Amino acid sequence: MTGPTTGPLRPSAAGGPALGPLGRLTPTPTHQRHVVALGGGHGLSATLSALRLLTDNVTAIVTVADDGGSSGRLRRDFNVLPPGDLRMALAALCDDSEWGHTWRDVLQHRFAGDGDLEGHALGNLMIVSLWELLGDTVGGLDLVGRLLGARGRVLPMAAEPLEIIAEIAGHDPVRPDEVVEVHGQHLVASSPGRVLSIGILPTCPKPCEPALQAVADADWVVLGPGSWFTSVMPHLLVPDLADALTGTPARKLLNLNLEVDRGETRDFRAEDHLASLAANAPDLTLDVVLADPSAVVDAASLRSAAEDLGAELVVSPVAVTGNPGVHDPLRLAAALRDVIG
Amino acid sequence: MTGPTTGPLRPSAAGGPALGPLGRLTPTPTHQRHVVALGGGHGLSATLSALRLLTDNVTAIVTVADDGGSSGRLRRDFNVLPPGDLRMALAALCDDSEWGHTWRDVLQHRFAGDGDLEGHALGNLMIVSLWELLGDTVGGLDLVGRLLGARGRVLPMAAEPLEIIAEIAGHDPVRPDEVVEVHGQHLVASSPGRVLSIGILPTCPKPCEPALQAVADADWVVLGPGSWFTSVMPHLLVPDLADALTGTPARKLLNLNLEVDRGETRDFRAEDHLASLAANAPDLTLDVVLADPSAVVDAASLRSAAEDLGAELVVSPVAVTGNPGVHDPLRLAAALRDVIG
Repeated sequence: MTGPTTGPLRPSAAGGPALGPLGRLTPTPTHQRHVVALGGGHGLSATLSALRLLTDNVTAIVTVADDGGSSGRLRRDFNVLPPGDLRMALAALCDDSEWGHTWRDVLQHRFAGDGDLEGHALGNLMIVSLWELLGDTVGGLDLVGRLLGARGRVLPMAAEPLEIIAEIAGHDPVRPDEVVEVHGQHLVASSPGRVLSIGILPTCPKPCEPALQAVADADWVVLGPGSWFTSVMPHLLVPDLADALTGTPARKLLNLNLEVDRGETRDFRAEDHLASLAANAPDLTLDVVLADPSAVVDAASLRSAAEDLGAELVVSPVAVTGNPGVHDPLRLAAALRDVIG
Repeated sequence: MTGPTTGPLRPSAAGGPALGPLGRLTPTPTHQRHVVALGGGHGLSATLSALRLLTDNVTAIVTVADDGGSSGRLRRDFNVLPPGDLRMALAALCDDSEWGHTWRDVLQHRFAGDGDLEGHALGNLMIVSLWELLGDTVGGLDLVGRLLGARGRVLPMAAEPLEIIAEIAGHDPVRPDEVVEVHGQHLVASSPGRVLSIGILPTCPKPCEPALQAVADADWVVLGPGSWFTSVMPHLLVPDLADALTGTPARKLLNLNLEVDRGETRDFRAEDHLASLAANAPDLTLDVVLADPSAVVDAASLRSAAEDLGAELVVSPVAVTGNPGVHDPLRLAAALRDVIG
């Protein structure tokens, strides 16, 4: 079992072509491409599990609006960012070694039973301890990354915890037409109603500067998959991050969900996701929309919706065989490689 | 900040002299001497902090009878060894580097506030997680040791949690002459009465085999300092460990407490500690009794008591300047070096 690498964290690669040994402009080799992935939860883990096969230079920018479970309790008790989505992203980037896998499993270990610790993930407690000790959010996450030998870096999408607010129709199933304002990611994500609009509090949170810099320096930015309104859209509602995303020279790919009409987006078509994106980030253009064939009902309509955002539609099978709701890291890696080059 | 060493854990050095390059018998160099330290809590940490300056080959054998605080809650909730004394020993052996010190501080970090986690040390939670994941007590401790770059190994004194039982006179100060049986390390250690005798339950616990092997292989065994009845004596009550201690060819040193008449041993003289040792382990002989000058009231009497155990009395200043109750790691290292060679 080998330990983590001992060198300093790799600095972000500058975007764009580099001068080759003969002084000619050469494209950045794929394994050095700086790819920034935005999201949270299992969706972001799927993207990171695929990207780590393609490049050594991944930055995950992770939602910090969770208020449920272990993260919610820690957020309330210690006035810190909810650590759970950050932990999952770090775990997905762990080194492919016995050392990396062991510490990934320790971080992901959740206490059972009915005692004080029930439901807490050890990694959440470790991250909060590092934050309390170091007084440095990014430094604490970088240290966990070094423990895991992570193939990249994990950063929060804002420097303070956020609250999701949504206007939801039919939040109470007894009154399906009533529209109410629902506060908190956990309630929004588990609502049986239809999300009409989404916002965050505070409306203009303190940004995470290294995350903004990563977006500015990226070769590619990947959005999604994930719970649409609580893991993918929130990034676009952080003004400084949205500005960085519209201003970066990086190319941008939206990785559509496999089951576009489930959970927070029940009754959505794939096109409705793109319309929702345009509504929440009017200035954002995309270069590629990646869709599994199962998510494409009307190819012409989806292609047209993608083109409205400036993007080419790429349809490629990315689901696990026999489990159409789950991304297959190898298929997703193949599809991303075909796009990213 | 450098990471932990990546090689396998150092195997135990065989005791006694080794064949040198010319085939002559040469003494083991000091930095390779295998020293086993028995104890728990702050006393054992003091010994380990000193020994790590002298040798790369330390094995700590740690009490597993704690039933108070964070350790007690974890022991009850998860049916595991109390991890706190093991954690403290690992922390004391951490590598002298930014990496080692940072992870030591993370392990020692204790959650504040009044929530579910109040009072838990992160290292205790990490050790329990590793035990749950690996199903291997020693393997889990070795992995924490590798995280810290520990200069040695930490093992439990038994493979199952123990309960301390003591006959105590005056446990209830209102009835100073009444003798009662008190169960549990926390109650015994905090009793205002006089401990008359001590025992463990189960009386013949499952031993930790690598700990027995370490004692058999040691060049030196160091007992104490520490809470006499709850951190130092319990090792001698584990039958397999007591047999290993009497049977080993290793030399044995008792490091007397600085304040011999405090806490569990109020009204004791240094000689009473030696009498108590003889009562609890009649077959055990010692080679050296190390005492700070402040603990020696009647040198002739103490020397005679030491000789009754087969030991030479060595008096050497080992306390912190201005804090006579606390061992100074450098002074203790100097005193131990003078003895160990």
